[in-house]
Amino acid sequence: MPKIVDRVERRTSIAAAAAEVIAEEGIEAVTMHGIAARAGVTTGAVTHYFADKDEVVLEALLLVDASMQARFESALAQDSPLVDALLAALPHDAVSRRDWSVWRVFSDRASRSASLRSQYRASTSAWLGAAAEALASRRGCPLEDVVLDAEVAVSTVDAIGDAASVDPEAWPVARQRRVLEHVLSVLDTR
Amino acid sequence: MPKIVDRVERRTSIAAAAAEVIAEEGIEAVTMHGIAARAGVTTGAVTHYFADKDEVVLEALLLVDASMQARFESALAQDSPLVDALLAALPHDAVSRRDWSVWRVFSDRASRSASLRSQYRASTSAWLGAAAEALASRRGCPLEDVVLDAEVAVSTVDAIGDAASVDPEAWPVARQRRVLEHVLSVLDTR
Repeated sequence: MPKIVDRVERRTSIAAAAAEVIAEEGIEAVTMHGIAARAGVTTGAVTHYFADKDEVVLEALLLVDASMQARFESALAQDSPLVDALLAALPHDAVSRRDWSVWRVFSDRASRSASLRSQYRASTSAWLGAAAEALASRRGCPLEDVVLDAEVAVSTVDAIGDAASVDPEAWPVARQRRVLEHVLSVLDTR
Repeated sequence: MPKIVDRVERRTSIAAAAAEVIAEEGIEAVTMHGIAARAGVTTGAVTHYFADKDEVVLEALLLVDASMQARFESALAQDSPLVDALLAALPHDAVSRRDWSVWRVFSDRASRSASLRSQYRASTSAWLGAAAEALASRRGCPLEDVVLDAEVAVSTVDAIGDAASVDPEAWPVARQRRVLEHVLSVLDTR
C-alpha cells in the first residue's frame, strides 16, 4: 500500500518541520506557508494534509511525544537505571530541547482548545502510567501503591524538562541528575 | 510626583490588559492594537510606554509574578500551613489561572530571548529561594540543608501550576492538595 505509507510519511515530515519552526521561532512564526518552506514542499501540500494550524500542532505533539517516550522506553529496555531513562527523555541536545519546546507550546494551545486538551490528557496520563509502572517494578509493589509517588516524580521531570528547554545553561545535565536522584531517593526511602 | 505615579499606573494597566489577552487568546493575538483595545487606550499610548511586544510580555510577567508571590507571602504571613500558601499561589480562579498562563507564554518567549531569559532566571531563583526559606523555617534548619528539597518542592508546584492552568477540570484543588501534601510529607519524613 505505497499510497498510505506515502501519506503517513508526508504528514510526519511536515509535522517535523512544524516542530522545528515552533521550537526555533515560536508559534507566531508557524504559518502554512512557513511550514511548507521548512519542509521543502508547496503550501498546497501542507493544506492538503492539514486542515489548520491546530492540526499541524497536534501532529507535531504526537511526534515529539513519541520521540521522548522512545528514548525513555529504550533506556529502560537496556536495563538503564530509572534516573538515566528519565534523563534520556529530558533536554540534553537539540532534538530533546525541541521536543520540550513543542510540548510547552502545545500545552498552551490546549488550554484554549477542547480537542487539543483531550490529547493533552491522553499524553499526560500515558506519562503518569509509564512512571508508575517503572516505580512499581523497581519496588516490586502493586501499581496502586505508587500513584502519588508517580505524580511527584512526573511533576519533577516535567518542571525540569520545561526549565531546561527554556534555559539550558542554568540546567546542565548534572543539575537535572542531582534533582532527579534526590526525588527518587526520597520517594524510595520514606 | 503625579507624573511618575501616572506613568507606572498606565504601564501596569496596559500590562494587565496584555496578560488577559495572552491567557484568553494566546500570544498570537497580542498586538499593540489588540492590547490597546483591551486596555481602553489608544495604540499610540501603548507604543508610548512599550517599545515592542517583548517589553509588554516582560511587564505582564512582572505583574503575574508579583500576583503569585503576594498570595503566597500573605498566606504565610497569616501563619497558614505551607501547603495552603502554595495552593494560594496555584491556579484556583480566573486570576491565578491567568498568572500561570502568562508565566508559560513568557517562558516560551524567554527560550528565544537572552534579555527575557535573564528575568526568567531572576524569577525562578526568587521562587526557589522563597521555597527554601519556608522549608528551612518550618524545620528550623539552615538554608543549605534544604536546597535539593526546595528544588523538588518548586518543581512539583511548577508542574501542577502549569497543568492546572491548561486543564483545570483534571486538576481540581483537591488533587493539587493531595500531591502537594504528599511531596511535603516525603521531603519532611525521609
